[in-house]
Amino acid sequence: MSDTPDWLHLMAEIVGTKGFTRMEDEMQPWLTDWRGRYTGKALALISPASTAEVAELVKVADAHSVALVPQGGNSGMVGGATPDSEGLSVLVSLRRMNKIRDISADDQLAICDAGVILQNLHEALDDHGQRFPLTLGGKGSATIGGLVSTNAGGTQVLRHGTMRALVAGLEAVLPDGSIYNGLAPLKKDNRGYDLKQLLVGGEGTLGIVTAATLKTVPALIDRSVAWAGVSSPQAAYRLFQFLNTRGSQSLEGFEIIPKSCLDAVLTHIPDTRSPLEQSAAWNVLIEVVRDQPDAIDPRISIENLLAEAIDKELLEDAVIAANEAQAEAFWKIRDSISEAERANGPALQHDISVPVARMADFITDAGSKIEASFPGTAVAAFGHMGDGNVHFHVKAPSEITGASEAAEWMSRCSETISPMVHDLVIASNGSISAEHGIGQSKRDELGRLSGDARIMALRAIKTAIDPKNIMNPGKLVPLASSTSAS
Amino acid sequence: MSDTPDWLHLMAEIVGTKGFTRMEDEMQPWLTDWRGRYTGKALALISPASTAEVAELVKVADAHSVALVPQGGNSGMVGGATPDSEGLSVLVSLRRMNKIRDISADDQLAICDAGVILQNLHEALDDHGQRFPLTLGGKGSATIGGLVSTNAGGTQVLRHGTMRALVAGLEAVLPDGSIYNGLAPLKKDNRGYDLKQLLVGGEGTLGIVTAATLKTVPALIDRSVAWAGVSSPQAAYRLFQFLNTRGSQSLEGFEIIPKSCLDAVLTHIPDTRSPLEQSAAWNVLIEVVRDQPDAIDPRISIENLLAEAIDKELLEDAVIAANEAQAEAFWKIRDSISEAERANGPALQHDISVPVARMADFITDAGSKIEASFPGTAVAAFGHMGDGNVHFHVKAPSEITGASEAAEWMSRCSETISPMVHDLVIASNGSISAEHGIGQSKRDELGRLSGDARIMALRAIKTAIDPKNIMNPGKLVPLASSTSAS
Repeated sequence: MSDTPDWLHLMAEIVGTKGFTRMEDEMQPWLTDWRGRYTGKALALISPASTAEVAELVKVADAHSVALVPQGGNSGMVGGATPDSEGLSVLVSLRRMNKIRDISADDQLAICDAGVILQNLHEALDDHGQRFPLTLGGKGSATIGGLVSTNAGGTQVLRHGTMRALVAGLEAVLPDGSIYNGLAPLKKDNRGYDLKQLLVGGEGTLGIVTAATLKTVPALIDRSVAWAGVSSPQAAYRLFQFLNTRGSQSLEGFEIIPKSCLDAVLTHIPDTRSPLEQSAAWNVLIEVVRDQPDAIDPRISIENLLAEAIDKELLEDAVIAANEAQAEAFWKIRDSISEAERANGPALQHDISVPVARMADFITDAGSKIEASFPGTAVAAFGHMGDGNVHFHVKAPSEITGASEAAEWMSRCSETISPMVHDLVIASNGSISAEHGIGQSKRDELGRLSGDARIMALRAIKTAIDPKNIMNPGKLVPLASSTSAS
Repeated sequence: MSDTPDWLHLMAEIVGTKGFTRMEDEMQPWLTDWRGRYTGKALALISPASTAEVAELVKVADAHSVALVPQGGNSGMVGGATPDSEGLSVLVSLRRMNKIRDISADDQLAICDAGVILQNLHEALDDHGQRFPLTLGGKGSATIGGLVSTNAGGTQVLRHGTMRALVAGLEAVLPDGSIYNGLAPLKKDNRGYDLKQLLVGGEGTLGIVTAATLKTVPALIDRSVAWAGVSSPQAAYRLFQFLNTRGSQSLEGFEIIPKSCLDAVLTHIPDTRSPLEQSAAWNVLIEVVRDQPDAIDPRISIENLLAEAIDKELLEDAVIAANEAQAEAFWKIRDSISEAERANGPALQHDISVPVARMADFITDAGSKIEASFPGTAVAAFGHMGDGNVHFHVKAPSEITGASEAAEWMSRCSETISPMVHDLVIASNGSISAEHGIGQSKRDELGRLSGDARIMALRAIKTAIDPKNIMNPGKLVPLASSTSAS
């Protein structure tokens, strides 16, 4: 280690040999992001084993102005945990800190180290008759620290909120190496600015989350899943309003699926069949659950609600899953859309949100505007309608075939189509990042599309808490040069 | 107005004569806080009528480094809306901005100007079959802007959370006069640091909240209220755990009342009688509600839950209110405790919280430590047990009689007893401000009792967002000199 700066020796001593490597092959898997769009370099990969070690590391980084890139499961979607290509930063993996410190079913709380993998938490809680009501595709890799730092969402946000609503307490190391100990689950705490809420969704730019106290809910007793056909996104929204005002305490899922996405699944994914005999223009997947013994049987609840909805002409046709296997088959369709769409051809994907009340019109209007402006493209919007959050895919014209042609189209149109999608989102008072965050990939767009107040606040907070810019530099906060005059 | 600085003329022009006064008698009611503990001076009382006027005012204040003190209903408990005694600041009242901009029952949202009075919102929502699930004693004066800025709590936090959980969107004027337009109710929005959550509970030190989009819930269909006797705070906690894990979706209130407080109410408040024939050492008030037609009848729910609790020996005796009049009589006891305690003699009051799981032991242990350290005092802890938040009253020894002796005792013991209470709170990982905020009255204690990380973050954020310190200066953020070395 002759080319090793002194401060790196100090860091190596803090974590010991188990937590330190500069070997290319050991570092390589963690230097490219989940989607394979960003590859960076790092001086070392350091894996502390405790909060105290994280604090010591950060103190050394602070003293020597070394950039730190915190990383959990490396399953993010926006390059937020990938270092830049200069190779002067240190990748700090939290994966060794993987202990569930405590589970209390009586208090409905779990305290986890940052490196605990989501699926492991799910399994541990199951043994306690509890459930952590947040799940997503990457649950086998995603860590609690990463989920906190990106304010993760998923399919249960409708009833339980995003990570922001599920964090009861937080522990983090701030950029000066001080430890913020906010793990105590205080339901009421009015001691000024909520540092916890700043760190949630902060993408590691204000400090390194080392542990969290999470709210849990009772394990599911049973659920009922229905598939309904409707004529339009507007009809889906009216059905959602009805279900949400009449049964919001038990409504845990409301997903929208256009006919084109259902067809793609039926074409490309084995062992799938259409839930409805007569294919509808738009479909919704509805899940109603029961997790308290006194609550109404979800099967009866959904039967009553759908009967009333049919009376009110809020839907065309519906089928309720007869058993758990059928419920899973319905969900498999929903969860296979991304894979099926990939098999269908290249598409630009957008993780966007607008107020729930505006989503139906957004799908219709933005879809037709994009298709009109970029002839040959086709828009597929699907997902968390109940949260005002859809995956807005713009599919390439059918003449785009082959990997290199697809890559060329994607690269070119990410400069033309995506900005137009984002402009339409902003015009609907929406967000260009619903659940994936900003990271590297949306930072410049955030700068372009944010008003003065937001930009001023983002920069001021970043500079105030991390004056040396050592915490995940280059992520999230738009640089001065990337903003417009607006 | 010969002694009027030029910038004050500019401000007067912005709001017009209806919104500007320097008359002593018009300003006087707003220069002393709700509890009469702080009186300040101001150069003028300015009442803007729109967000645009607020922004113009702040721009003038920014250009001339004028301190602004935002004020809503002036019903705060910690002097947070009272200017200092130098008389160089401007009191900015939001009360003229009192329009409910929109109510949507279908979307369960209401958009309110900052000056809307809480009770007026309650009444307006009632006409729409909706409810804003936050209420407190000062509801006839408290404004939405003040409730947001102090992250208000109350008796429904158990089920619905504090104001922080009820704000779906926010509009505010930042210290540079820019307008942060975050009113859109986005359920998922990951565009970096959550400015909204910084302003909630920010006590007007980071900007002036001008409007909020609030989440509403369906109006109550019915409720059932029970009164139970238990042997100790620990027994109350076990009962709470049982009710909360078995029926948290419908449990809206869980208040603890010691025998001494009940006795004080029965002695001093007319038309009150003990709910239980046999007086218990500790009492709990339980409210179970129904606001969705499919939910279980709360009367049946509470009967089942209490029967099971008796089987499990979780309570000694209980009575369920036979009708709404009796339910109100039970609540009248709870709501009269402060008045009855005042009639009983002087007491130092503390608004504190600890993790719910630690509250029972805190009540017992902190109570006996205080009584042992200050002979003759008696501790009465009552209130929101389900939130880990009690009003912790330390009553003066019985020989303290007469107003001046009481005042002298209060003044002296706020320097000895209160710091000890706060030390005990911190030792239990609690908060010295559960729901009232920091304001003027707890700022130095916050400085004394916060770790480096919290203090660093509070000061850094304040300085970054409000570099000229024009927004409610002297409130909330501990000054450099007031912190200890810890």
